Amino acid sequence: MKFKAEIDIMPLEALLDPQGKAVSGAMKNLGLPEISGVRVGKHITLQVEADDKKSAEQKVEQACRQLLCNEIMEFYRYSLAPEK
Amino acid sequence: MKFKAEIDIMPLEALLDPQGKAVSGAMKNLGLPEISGVRVGKHITLQVEADDKKSAEQKVEQACRQLLCNEIMEFYRYSLAPEK
Repeated sequence: MKFKAEIDIMPLEALLDPQGKAVSGAMKNLGLPEISGVRVGKHITLQVEADDKKSAEQKVEQACRQLLCNEIMEFYRYSLAPEK
Repeated sequence: MKFKAEIDIMPLEALLDPQGKAVSGAMKNLGLPEISGVRVGKHITLQVEADDKKSAEQKVEQACRQLLCNEIMEFYRYSLAPEK
């Protein structure tokens, strides 16, 4: 079975996000002072081949922990759905 | 009213995504050959101050079009929810 994973990897809330801060500043120059608190992270989509949802989850967890997410500075969350 | 927007900005399907390609390759070296078709984009969260959802949507659209998303190479989608 093929699953599609949608993964978000974001800077930890406790850490500064200089890129987000820069974007917040740029919003003001753009005439959008109503926008604030910007945080910038990564969005990753991928396909996983697995027998069931549980084993697909394990593979995605392993990929996040070992490669995609630096857990010292970032956290991740994901959703999995069967591929149409 | 304060809204929270969750924005995904991804490379267009028709374009190659070299970063995603590199991650797909790395998955094989990591012992995860079941993972393929990786695409890497950005995930952005922000707060918008607006009278109603419709005007919040307009502001987020404007931010995406004018600053966050390069529509020649990327597409965006977002969801908006009242901030708790």
